[in-house]
Amino acid sequence: MSLEWISLLLLLQLSCYFSPGSAGKVLVWPTEYSHWINMKTILDELVQRGHEVSVLTSSASILVDPNKPSAIKFEIYPSSYTKHEYEGIFRKIIDDLIHLPKEPVWEHFSLMQGVIWDYSDSILKLCKDVVLNKKLVRKLQESKFDLVLADAVGPCGELLAELLKIPLMYSLRFVPGHKIEKYSGGLPFPPSYVPVVMSELSDQMTFMERVKNMLYLFSENYLVYSHYKTLISLTFLMRKAEMWLVRNYWDFEFPHPVLPHFEFIGGYHCKPQIISSQEIEEFAQSSGENGIVVFSLGSMVSNMTEERANVIASALAQIPQKVRYSKTRYLRANTRLYEWIPQSDLLGHPKTKAFITHGGANGIYEAIYHGIPMVGIPLFADQPDNVAHMKTKGAAVRLDFSSMSSTDLLNALKTVMHDPSYKENAMKLSRIQHDQPMKPLDRAVFWIEFVMRHKRAKHLRPASHDLNWFQYHSLDVIGFLLASTAVFVTTKCCLFHCWKFAKTGKKEKGSSYS
Amino acid sequence: MSLEWISLLLLLQLSCYFSPGSAGKVLVWPTEYSHWINMKTILDELVQRGHEVSVLTSSASILVDPNKPSAIKFEIYPSSYTKHEYEGIFRKIIDDLIHLPKEPVWEHFSLMQGVIWDYSDSILKLCKDVVLNKKLVRKLQESKFDLVLADAVGPCGELLAELLKIPLMYSLRFVPGHKIEKYSGGLPFPPSYVPVVMSELSDQMTFMERVKNMLYLFSENYLVYSHYKTLISLTFLMRKAEMWLVRNYWDFEFPHPVLPHFEFIGGYHCKPQIISSQEIEEFAQSSGENGIVVFSLGSMVSNMTEERANVIASALAQIPQKVRYSKTRYLRANTRLYEWIPQSDLLGHPKTKAFITHGGANGIYEAIYHGIPMVGIPLFADQPDNVAHMKTKGAAVRLDFSSMSSTDLLNALKTVMHDPSYKENAMKLSRIQHDQPMKPLDRAVFWIEFVMRHKRAKHLRPASHDLNWFQYHSLDVIGFLLASTAVFVTTKCCLFHCWKFAKTGKKEKGSSYS
Repeated sequence: MSLEWISLLLLLQLSCYFSPGSAGKVLVWPTEYSHWINMKTILDELVQRGHEVSVLTSSASILVDPNKPSAIKFEIYPSSYTKHEYEGIFRKIIDDLIHLPKEPVWEHFSLMQGVIWDYSDSILKLCKDVVLNKKLVRKLQESKFDLVLADAVGPCGELLAELLKIPLMYSLRFVPGHKIEKYSGGLPFPPSYVPVVMSELSDQMTFMERVKNMLYLFSENYLVYSHYKTLISLTFLMRKAEMWLVRNYWDFEFPHPVLPHFEFIGGYHCKPQIISSQEIEEFAQSSGENGIVVFSLGSMVSNMTEERANVIASALAQIPQKVRYSKTRYLRANTRLYEWIPQSDLLGHPKTKAFITHGGANGIYEAIYHGIPMVGIPLFADQPDNVAHMKTKGAAVRLDFSSMSSTDLLNALKTVMHDPSYKENAMKLSRIQHDQPMKPLDRAVFWIEFVMRHKRAKHLRPASHDLNWFQYHSLDVIGFLLASTAVFVTTKCCLFHCWKFAKTGKKEKGSSYS
Repeated sequence: MSLEWISLLLLLQLSCYFSPGSAGKVLVWPTEYSHWINMKTILDELVQRGHEVSVLTSSASILVDPNKPSAIKFEIYPSSYTKHEYEGIFRKIIDDLIHLPKEPVWEHFSLMQGVIWDYSDSILKLCKDVVLNKKLVRKLQESKFDLVLADAVGPCGELLAELLKIPLMYSLRFVPGHKIEKYSGGLPFPPSYVPVVMSELSDQMTFMERVKNMLYLFSENYLVYSHYKTLISLTFLMRKAEMWLVRNYWDFEFPHPVLPHFEFIGGYHCKPQIISSQEIEEFAQSSGENGIVVFSLGSMVSNMTEERANVIASALAQIPQKVRYSKTRYLRANTRLYEWIPQSDLLGHPKTKAFITHGGANGIYEAIYHGIPMVGIPLFADQPDNVAHMKTKGAAVRLDFSSMSSTDLLNALKTVMHDPSYKENAMKLSRIQHDQPMKPLDRAVFWIEFVMRHKRAKHLRPASHDLNWFQYHSLDVIGFLLASTAVFVTTKCCLFHCWKFAKTGKKEKGSSYS
């Protein structure tokens, strides 16, 4: 058989798996920062496959830049926020999160609800800017979209899908307490072996850790509930989502029960390394045998105290490796500073030995993808939990940002570079990420296309969505069975006593005659 | 880019997904009848991809025919059963199952345990024939297998894997009460929306149906437990299984919680239609516009009463369609009888209008695959439940074998052929089966190869496997928290009373001085 024939056959074979069908029209309700970067990866792929993608973008949007040339369409609507106000809200949220005290747990959750409320509130305001804009809604209705794709972390996608009467799909990393995944998605999270998100626990818990996990669950259930009420009240609509694309996979997450309409696509944004710029390549090559260390605290932290920066810089100055460092001022000769670094490509560079990271999920996934051991210095939100996961899986050492010394950082770096188990474990995670039946991005796009092709994915929808919590836990059934048993026993007892009474009465009557 | 290049690139791409790695050696612990047919589909594919497959076959084996030419190796061991005895056991089991009374539930389960016990016992005896055969065990150990692939319905696979110190994978349709899936696999089955297997309930249950489901659960938990103790005692070993390949999918099953180490591969044995024999083709074509009806009650029922056969034949004689009928004697001109029919190919024939089936899972999957509406006449075991699923999904009408009349069968046939909703629903299920990210057989083989490549799939293993039922349900944690609260409240009360007592005492003392 000639190669032409083979290629045609293979193309046919591939088309069975990936056939996009006719091009679809996707309406996107996005979120900002890393959430947008994540969403954009999927949208780029959809556009690549011939679909039309429109992103609802507020005039105050931060990272969703409609002026950058892109095949994605941006539907800009006037917002009641100015860009400055909107940025201010996010700055405050991040600042609050950074300064959230871990202990006492009660205070932690109390303050957390405030942050979540601020966030939810700001998204709701944007949502109102859209759904109350009659002209915009009419335009959207006339555009005949096939699907709403929304980040489930903030409300609105479900309202849009309802307004336009089209199917809905979610993309999600997680929400605190897994409230949305639990109540709107239907996922069970047994507290005996599934650590509560952000608890920093592993799936191998001691008895006291399981107690802690249960307390976390109570606190989150009670506290987060009271302030997540906007989303909870949308549960009815959110349950209509055909599928949930969760940005997680079993290299990062601990195995837990899932449902057929959840697809775990963690790491889908990762790509093989592309040759970096000449200047970066020269810097890397000049490191010789020792290789390089990549350092980044992410895009959301723009300044740190002089004292902290100095601690970091002086540790980095003591290693033979060269260092790529984003955002600090105190450097030695082996350290080079960049406002922005091509993090994924650097992590994929054969010279890279270690990654010092704040523990953002995207960065960790890039390190997993390229098999690079980590030193985690978590700052806020899910970062401590993310680093705890990598620590449990033996691919990271964890440090505390506010209290670590230069020696701590130096020792941690030496550990992950010289103790071979860290590299081994990082490579193990990398193999898990690479060795999947189908690439996560292809799976994500497959299911988006599936829902557009079939207008739904009802065969994956759990029937629990039609039950309230009382019914879900079979409390009504158990109550009924207990009541029935009680009635049965009481009736039996009564009958027995009546019979005995009648018998005794008869006897007495009998004896009175005797 | 030339086609040669494209084909090479595509080959590379495909190799990412399907790369079999180096050829592996698989040891198989099989079961008989349809279970073996299911297992063989996977084994054939493994052999096709260059793996070496050895099947442990007892000298009494029924359907595993080592004399048929096959690329699969059969390792025949002497059994303490004669072929005649072994066949007798299965005949008795089938006979018992057919005559199992549905009501009262108590008696149903009581008799069911007897059947399960007989089955389990017979497999255990075969297992002993293997593990106590020192020469055979030594030979198996020296063969350096990479994996044990076993049907989880009967014990032994886990023992073999332990003896040979190699990874274990299960293939499974289900076991009564989902005991094995629950306790050895870790799958949760919430009774509020997951109908107990063989209950014939759907996932959309009324309150009284949920009560019934709960009672089924209790009965199965209590009754099946007592007689499934052999398997339960193997739980510890069975939990070591790296993956479970479950012969079910969401076209057939109702959505329920799953775990990452479960892969649902239902329908993997189905294939596109191959042109049947000339004779069959002529028969089909001669049916003209009316098309044909396929009738089969499966391979396990070899005779029925004259009266029942006549009821069926006389109904079939009244339809304009031609009928392929396996196993009965009373026919009219339009009906043709075969000892064995190429069922899947006939169901895939464009002339086929309906399928009259006993509701075996394999037959139902073939009907789903080809989108053929069904008349279900279930006989025993999971067949009533299978037909109930198809009925709920709107692709089948159900009849009762012992009480149906010719008119009933005739009406049922007319309904599924003339009410377009049945064909529509069957086609909907067919689309679900065909439109998957990856074909089920490819997924099955992918994970078998994965486990052989990596020697394990530990990243998918739920931590619940290390907990006992008490810990799993967090009863110890809840007990501890309740006890702690009680101690706390009691201490507080005591302190308060002591303080009050002291205060009163002081007052009294004070007042005595006043």
